[in-house]
Amino acid sequence: MAVSNGSTPSGHPCSSATNAGPFNDSMSFVDVAIIGAGPAGCMAADVLSRFSARGLTVRIFDKRSAQLENGQADGLNPRSLEIFESLGIIEQVQKEASPMSEINFWAPCPETGRLVRTGQIPDTTPGLSRFQQTILHQGRVETHLLDDAQKHSQGAIAPERSMLPDTLSIDESLVADHNSHSITLTVRHLSEGESTPDAYKFDDKGVRSGLFRSSLLSAAEEEGLYKKDGTAERVETVKARYLIGCDGAHSWTRRQLGVKMLGDQTNFVWGVLDLVPRTNFPDIRMACAIQSANFGSIMVIPQPRDLVRLYIQLPIRVEPGAYLDKSRITSETILATARKILHPYTLDYESIDWFTGYHVGQRLTESFAQYNRVFLAGDACHTHSPKAGQGMNTSMQDTWNLCWKLGLVATGLAKPELLETYSLERQPVAAALLSLDCKLARSWSSKRHQLQKGREEDRNAEKLGEIIAKGKAFTLGISINYADSIIVGKDGSRGAVTSKQYLASKLPVGERFYSAQVVNQASATADQLTTRIPFTGAFRLLVFPGDITKPAAKERLQKLADYLDSPESVVSKYTPGDLPRWAVIDPVTVHCAERTAVGLYDFPQPSIFHPHNYKRIYCDGPSHHRGDGKAYETYGISKEEGAIVVVRPDQYTGLIVGLEDTDMLDAYFAQFMLPAKDGGHPGAKVAEVLPPDWSKVVPLEITGSFAVEEVRVNGTS
Amino acid sequence: MAVSNGSTPSGHPCSSATNAGPFNDSMSFVDVAIIGAGPAGCMAADVLSRFSARGLTVRIFDKRSAQLENGQADGLNPRSLEIFESLGIIEQVQKEASPMSEINFWAPCPETGRLVRTGQIPDTTPGLSRFQQTILHQGRVETHLLDDAQKHSQGAIAPERSMLPDTLSIDESLVADHNSHSITLTVRHLSEGESTPDAYKFDDKGVRSGLFRSSLLSAAEEEGLYKKDGTAERVETVKARYLIGCDGAHSWTRRQLGVKMLGDQTNFVWGVLDLVPRTNFPDIRMACAIQSANFGSIMVIPQPRDLVRLYIQLPIRVEPGAYLDKSRITSETILATARKILHPYTLDYESIDWFTGYHVGQRLTESFAQYNRVFLAGDACHTHSPKAGQGMNTSMQDTWNLCWKLGLVATGLAKPELLETYSLERQPVAAALLSLDCKLARSWSSKRHQLQKGREEDRNAEKLGEIIAKGKAFTLGISINYADSIIVGKDGSRGAVTSKQYLASKLPVGERFYSAQVVNQASATADQLTTRIPFTGAFRLLVFPGDITKPAAKERLQKLADYLDSPESVVSKYTPGDLPRWAVIDPVTVHCAERTAVGLYDFPQPSIFHPHNYKRIYCDGPSHHRGDGKAYETYGISKEEGAIVVVRPDQYTGLIVGLEDTDMLDAYFAQFMLPAKDGGHPGAKVAEVLPPDWSKVVPLEITGSFAVEEVRVNGTS
Repeated sequence: MAVSNGSTPSGHPCSSATNAGPFNDSMSFVDVAIIGAGPAGCMAADVLSRFSARGLTVRIFDKRSAQLENGQADGLNPRSLEIFESLGIIEQVQKEASPMSEINFWAPCPETGRLVRTGQIPDTTPGLSRFQQTILHQGRVETHLLDDAQKHSQGAIAPERSMLPDTLSIDESLVADHNSHSITLTVRHLSEGESTPDAYKFDDKGVRSGLFRSSLLSAAEEEGLYKKDGTAERVETVKARYLIGCDGAHSWTRRQLGVKMLGDQTNFVWGVLDLVPRTNFPDIRMACAIQSANFGSIMVIPQPRDLVRLYIQLPIRVEPGAYLDKSRITSETILATARKILHPYTLDYESIDWFTGYHVGQRLTESFAQYNRVFLAGDACHTHSPKAGQGMNTSMQDTWNLCWKLGLVATGLAKPELLETYSLERQPVAAALLSLDCKLARSWSSKRHQLQKGREEDRNAEKLGEIIAKGKAFTLGISINYADSIIVGKDGSRGAVTSKQYLASKLPVGERFYSAQVVNQASATADQLTTRIPFTGAFRLLVFPGDITKPAAKERLQKLADYLDSPESVVSKYTPGDLPRWAVIDPVTVHCAERTAVGLYDFPQPSIFHPHNYKRIYCDGPSHHRGDGKAYETYGISKEEGAIVVVRPDQYTGLIVGLEDTDMLDAYFAQFMLPAKDGGHPGAKVAEVLPPDWSKVVPLEITGSFAVEEVRVNGTS
Repeated sequence: MAVSNGSTPSGHPCSSATNAGPFNDSMSFVDVAIIGAGPAGCMAADVLSRFSARGLTVRIFDKRSAQLENGQADGLNPRSLEIFESLGIIEQVQKEASPMSEINFWAPCPETGRLVRTGQIPDTTPGLSRFQQTILHQGRVETHLLDDAQKHSQGAIAPERSMLPDTLSIDESLVADHNSHSITLTVRHLSEGESTPDAYKFDDKGVRSGLFRSSLLSAAEEEGLYKKDGTAERVETVKARYLIGCDGAHSWTRRQLGVKMLGDQTNFVWGVLDLVPRTNFPDIRMACAIQSANFGSIMVIPQPRDLVRLYIQLPIRVEPGAYLDKSRITSETILATARKILHPYTLDYESIDWFTGYHVGQRLTESFAQYNRVFLAGDACHTHSPKAGQGMNTSMQDTWNLCWKLGLVATGLAKPELLETYSLERQPVAAALLSLDCKLARSWSSKRHQLQKGREEDRNAEKLGEIIAKGKAFTLGISINYADSIIVGKDGSRGAVTSKQYLASKLPVGERFYSAQVVNQASATADQLTTRIPFTGAFRLLVFPGDITKPAAKERLQKLADYLDSPESVVSKYTPGDLPRWAVIDPVTVHCAERTAVGLYDFPQPSIFHPHNYKRIYCDGPSHHRGDGKAYETYGISKEEGAIVVVRPDQYTGLIVGLEDTDMLDAYFAQFMLPAKDGGHPGAKVAEVLPPDWSKVVPLEITGSFAVEEVRVNGTS
């Protein structure tokens, strides 16, 4: 189903290579090229893999020869975990991760200058999400995403490593035609020597260093790491319809586009150490903010496998634009500073896994996209300090936002305008993150908020603690509220449809849809609703019909079903005939009648009870083992009025309307969907499953015994 | 550390093969040989793999060339799931499995003879376990166990397939010496043709048949499947210290030992169908007991991947000792019977995955073990119908019981007498299962309990329902209570020690230890206690010291610590010096002081707070996200008196004593443990971690700013 011009090769996108061998050009076609296999790139690959069965082709390039094993990002906020649940990879992530429970604040006692514990807050604000912030190394997260992408694409999507982008050109005359491969990218297949930077090395104590990819490097220095020494295997030309640049703070893609980063680093330098500590500091397995009297600050983040990460403020300031001599930062110098800050607590170690250093810097790109064809995501469009634990989260959530849109547009189901909502939605998130990070960085790095002797109200732990606590709503990823647009029917300012927000008063339109427990009508099992609407690229029509044992509610549901079954409904119109009827817009029903008072056959077929599909009707009520989810109450939905909640593929609430508001459904989807080229589904043609007609069953005399055949030892019967 | 005679080869047990090639004998040595890679054999391999790092060698043979992909057992009771949690494989099992929530009963209406729903009960009795009964195909369970065994043994333990046992001899003169390889087993390496039975085939409609391994086959017929056609690669001689026969109902091992099965099959024949149904029967995704008026009964078990298993009573009775002509049982004939029973509900299908047939039979072996050297487990010692869903559970729980004992004895840590408790504990479980299964089989297969017109009190669904409901305590695997013995200090009838049961009144000695939520003192995370005491082969001393902010409680704990740290304690005596101090008997503490009122350094080191081990001290109290586990209350432990609960490696409560009852700890472990040959640990020699001595830290003047170095653009500082 992927729309493509005639010259797209079938099979693996590489298969059209016309010449193999060093430096002989080859050319291939692909729908989406991803540059960079970090968290943003891997998330992009995984989301797009769900469109692979519809013919979408995807390649993902990374200049490094192998995945990172140490260092870099490790914080996963509840929203990222919700996304992993939607992708079906939450179990493996949670099994490996180290959950965070509490942040402890340490600051000098005003009288003695000694470190004392001054406060503690839960790391994740209770009640916001079913998931709590947790810690897992970025390399493991990337692995889970890539494994999943490979699984969903039958092996077609796999990272191509040691591949360095070389040139990029965009044929502006073609960009308006989304079927065209208007992007030409050349990629060098690096030799072993070229793709393994010398700087990927150890310090003088043999500790693995992350400096070679830190913000302490200039773009030129980073570029210099992958020196073209003339041994590259070959240079390949890739013609792509879309390109996603997920290639980090010094993004090559961004520089080719001539897009600038605005803002600059502030001047404090921090060191990072991953170590298995031997210490008598009692909160070493807690997240901690430690601010010493005179020697700077430490942030403690416990990691899996007994590791602890320490972020340590170093006594070095770098003028904007200047770069530090990297050799001055070693595991030794960082550790020495950490010991001064923690004194008199001891800090030894069993092993040090990794270290690095960075400038604090907040920078935002001028724009997130060009021509709706090339997109920037992750560090390529926003850089900031690791203090808020947002790097991996924001990067993944960028492409989580972008790629379902790209999948729908690239397979011809949605209008290219849908892609404009990427910048609209993600740019403000990046801006908010940078603003919070500025505040945090200032509070951590300066003494302005330090506790001054005798000034009780100035206790720095409270100051920093306040910023951290207030920032939680944002850093947990839960409070993000996307603006009104063609896919967020909030107030009609940009789109044409205004939700009836009062019908689901606790589900703000534009915010992420959160889970409530419901009970499966067919199996009586307690289920989280979000577990049952995993990411497939489909919109969900969550139908809350109320108590359908009441005739009015039942009639209202029947009318909705009649609409959905008609050839004019959004389901029929926008779903190509060669896809299953519910593959694009998928109705899921949560009623609130007593479960045993109704049966599956009380629900209209095929739109509400899809025949033989036992995972589409749920009951809001008590379960045998997990209590009562009270979904209607949780969502603020009246059991009398009911509601339809349109949940976007990325699990954000797009629209809330009443059961009778089918015209609003029409108007909402018409803003960004394209009618199926084959005319869609011709109304309901699905065979119904009818219960037996008992009037035709004759009463049965119950006999005293069964008619059975006896088999004897001699084998005769 | 495995005790073995001098000729045991190092490295892979196969490595000593003196001759390769067809029919040239080779000889190798192994500590434990397992025959059969079904659920019992795979559990044995996984449990024993935890002793692999101590040098224990294990081989597991299976005559089949590949793992089962269809059919056979699929029910997992809560106790099995608790065991999987203990082994660390619960996540992958739960992700694939299909949870059961409710059993629905269907029976004829007395007036019309029509099938009506007559009742429903929760499938797992609420409150018994954190886990509920679930369904996963035996092949997947075996895979998870084998993968885990391979992981824990660094690849050394892996199933050897196409290996048919040929001869078994036991040198009785050697059996008393547990270091000797008194068992001689020869095993044929089968050729492809020999290990893939012809009967592993399809019926006339192309449906995969399980008849070739069903109870409809005689031992001779089953033996005949693996015909020795002279093409076997070679015959290998394996000298083993221990042998576990997990080779099914027709157990070759059992027959070599000359051990008889007592009991016989009753005479009804049942068919089994795994299919993706197309039906209008509304409870097809529920567990159901359906008893028709005149055509027999069906049990419905929903499986993962939209499959449903139907157990269908066939109108055939077989005289004891007779065997049915297997060709008469096909997917077609079974389906035809099912349709009669369900009428007027329809039963079509999208696909049929597998079918088989079986006799109902309850048989129990005369003995479970010989010489404490050869053991039978699973179907090899007890066969019964699949109706109670116990086949896979009981089999796995047999070797779960046996193999930690075998691991301890084989590595020289425990006395051989420990192995006698295997029969003592598992024989009564098998007997109880057979008795329940008899009742169930009679109720399912006869019309005695059928609903008779006008006899309201005889409603069969209630009768069958009653048996099922009453049997739940047993079938869920939770109520098993092992008798008094050297490892169960219940009433002193077989062992010398009698628990102070009143100190933990809700933790019956001899029953499985159940979980309560506690809060980690070091990280403030909410944890299930059982998650934190996974299976490692170690006994756990769960120390409940009460509120240690109270001087009396603190003093009592200190006294216990002094004992544990002494060279005379059970920890010091029974733990070889070359193992970590807590590898054999592992103290875990759950206090009930307010978490923030105490710190890690308030707990005595090293026995209570093992230095740098942050997973051994927990608090009974509120958590940030998961409420208050109320562990003391849950276990019936007084916050004033406290208790020590000794939990066996297999998670059964072995002993309950007071904190001061160290003499009882001594007496209990002396019954079955062997003092370490190297003298054990010489008392506490672990360095303590002391908090800073603040009296030596001088007060610090807090300065107005940091001393920092400036790096300028020109690179100088």
